[in-house]
Amino acid sequence: MKLNPNQKESIYKMKALIIIDMLNDFVTGSLACDRAQRIIPNIKKLAEAYREAGFPVIYNNDAHLAEIDAEFEVWGPHAVEGTEGAEVISELSPEKSDIIVPKRRYSGFTGTDLHLRLQELGVDTVVLTGLHTNMCLRHTSYDAFVHGYKICIPEDCADAFDQQQQDDGLAYIKKLYNAEITDSKTLIEQVLEKVAIA
Amino acid sequence: MKLNPNQKESIYKMKALIIIDMLNDFVTGSLACDRAQRIIPNIKKLAEAYREAGFPVIYNNDAHLAEIDAEFEVWGPHAVEGTEGAEVISELSPEKSDIIVPKRRYSGFTGTDLHLRLQELGVDTVVLTGLHTNMCLRHTSYDAFVHGYKICIPEDCADAFDQQQQDDGLAYIKKLYNAEITDSKTLIEQVLEKVAIA
Amino acid sequence: MKLNPNQKESIYKMKALIIIDMLNDFVTGSLACDRAQRIIPNIKKLAEAYREAGFPVIYNNDAHLAEIDAEFEVWGPHAVEGTEGAEVISELSPEKSDIIVPKRRYSGFTGTDLHLRLQELGVDTVVLTGLHTNMCLRHTSYDAFVHGYKICIPEDCADAFDQQQQDDGLAYIKKLYNAEITDSKTLIEQVLEKVAIA
Amino acid sequence: MKLNPNQKESIYKMKALIIIDMLNDFVTGSLACDRAQRIIPNIKKLAEAYREAGFPVIYNNDAHLAEIDAEFEVWGPHAVEGTEGAEVISELSPEKSDIIVPKRRYSGFTGTDLHLRLQELGVDTVVLTGLHTNMCLRHTSYDAFVHGYKICIPEDCADAFDQQQQDDGLAYIKKLYNAEITDSKTLIEQVLEKVAIA
Repeated sequence: MKLNPNQKESIYKMKALIIIDMLNDFVTGSLACDRAQRIIPNIKKLAEAYREAGFPVIYNNDAHLAEIDAEFEVWGPHAVEGTEGAEVISELSPEKSDIIVPKRRYSGFTGTDLHLRLQELGVDTVVLTGLHTNMCLRHTSYDAFVHGYKICIPEDCADAFDQQQQDDGLAYIKKLYNAEITDSKTLIEQVLEKVAIA
Repeated sequence: MKLNPNQKESIYKMKALIIIDMLNDFVTGSLACDRAQRIIPNIKKLAEAYREAGFPVIYNNDAHLAEIDAEFEVWGPHAVEGTEGAEVISELSPEKSDIIVPKRRYSGFTGTDLHLRLQELGVDTVVLTGLHTNMCLRHTSYDAFVHGYKICIPEDCADAFDQQQQDDGLAYIKKLYNAEITDSKTLIEQVLEKVAIA
Repeated sequence: MKLNPNQKESIYKMKALIIIDMLNDFVTGSLACDRAQRIIPNIKKLAEAYREAGFPVIYNNDAHLAEIDAEFEVWGPHAVEGTEGAEVISELSPEKSDIIVPKRRYSGFTGTDLHLRLQELGVDTVVLTGLHTNMCLRHTSYDAFVHGYKICIPEDCADAFDQQQQDDGLAYIKKLYNAEITDSKTLIEQVLEKVAIA
Repeated sequence: MKLNPNQKESIYKMKALIIIDMLNDFVTGSLACDRAQRIIPNIKKLAEAYREAGFPVIYNNDAHLAEIDAEFEVWGPHAVEGTEGAEVISELSPEKSDIIVPKRRYSGFTGTDLHLRLQELGVDTVVLTGLHTNMCLRHTSYDAFVHGYKICIPEDCADAFDQQQQDDGLAYIKKLYNAEITDSKTLIEQVLEKVAIA
């Protein structure tokens, strides 16, 4: 396998895979999104490759407060902390070494220790996956940009309610936050190459 | 003038008018936006009515650092602190009693004292105007939502590079942050009514 | 019971009781503090009165990451997430209706959803208790001050490694953040009075 | 000059000198502090050496809002934005290339773009100087610690209202945030060595 110079640069970064809202309520439940089926196997393979390579895998999951959560005014009750709807779908169940960061707003940084963890892990690049490209991924990207993290989105590991929202979300994140839009195959190849070198 | 119950409620809120990026570089300069002409007279009238009523008028202006500002990787140099391009357009020059909050990223809350000022002024509702609906207004709306402020956007006082971005921005802010989309005439009538009552 | 005017004002506030770091490691474990014994029964009574009155009781507990947590450079491993040392002491075990907010740094606001929760609960006054007055209580007080919450510390429900640190901590928080220093008896009387009125 | 290994390590860091509240009101005005005279010449020499070496010099100055600033409840009016009391003392007037970061609370990070600037400048170590060791320097140190910056305080460039507060402040910052307590002579020698090597 031969990498181009851009890929080479990527090899030496410390990446974290962030899997956003791949929860029962978001995939098949109260906010079901059929398009999520497309990305499940891709996220699964990417997570396996990253775990193998020693990159952190972080689940960034909605965990809303029953009754009083301010987001319910917008979306109605969903992903309520402690319910089955707030659990990661069985196809992507976390491994023991993975990290869970619960969240309560669109951005994975708002009211969470995500920034502290990324610092402690020495991460400089966040690979954002899951649901929805034009909502939680977009908001998380802004905070990553503000904190100086590089942003990478494999487009076959992120989706939205429809194609228009998916396209808009990717274009927006690429333009406003200098994100790299790529795919899981490329990211896995980079990791394999790294493992081979090391 | 007779108000409906919803408007009545609005009368008793402490609103702040926030005028975003109505700067030479954004209106006629390096990031010129012809559509901005439409909103200038509307913002001007709304600002006059709010000043008269004792509501704070806050200019939230890009003021980027020469050379090193991280936003230049995305947009190239613009609204550089201390340059003419970073000045408010002459049609909307601040009054002495107005407040200037310089900013360095898309959200007016990022790296600024906007939240401190709004608290000190007892503000519970932010009226967001200026440029661009789908960028700085959108980002500022999210932080306002997180901090518990109500959000109001008069659609004739905010605009974007094209109609699609304007429509997308308004719909997004309304949906995700429970914002009220209204117009300057309605807001001015509420203020006049309030002054009449007081 | 007769309340003075200042106490009367307090009655109508929405208070939250925040119990900080009353964990095995802090009371009898790796960072044991004998002085903590004094405050346990006082916190217990205050928590019971607040639950009865419908005020939220929030446990704000250190929950450090094994191995990589940045605070270990300072204190060595303690209160590691998932260990017995990180559990609330049995005398003060949370009730089902209580709220747990894990934290990773000195301030209960840093990297947590404490501000979101307090907003959602309509809280305007935080009653800070637990360990240590001159460290976590002090840091949490600053963030409460910045976010506009009133601060109240019942001195018989908070302590430090020695009397000097206790006195310094209380004086500092009172002076720099306008905190009210009181005791649990007074706070419980206010609550009882309120329940009697309602 | 021969450096020990610890000093060598320091040479290769990107430091920023932060000069806190060396303003007329804090040195000779409404909150006058006679002890500040001791540190003026030391800060002056250190600033000159850092400018020469290409390290950023950042003035982090109180700039309070007339009338409504929340800090006035604690301290009374002081360092009001736009007044002479809020100006840097003439002995330490900023050079054109220096950076001014106004602040409104004890921490230089609260409601300011200090973190954005330090990131953009590639800074990993903050050298904190000025007034007061046990107040603004302490609060700024905590936020620096949370954001992962190394902290260095030259004890002859920082002071407080009395010796007890100075000693307490230094000990607290050293203990809780792993800060290095040093002096201006050592820091200047490191810079000279670096310039000699380059």
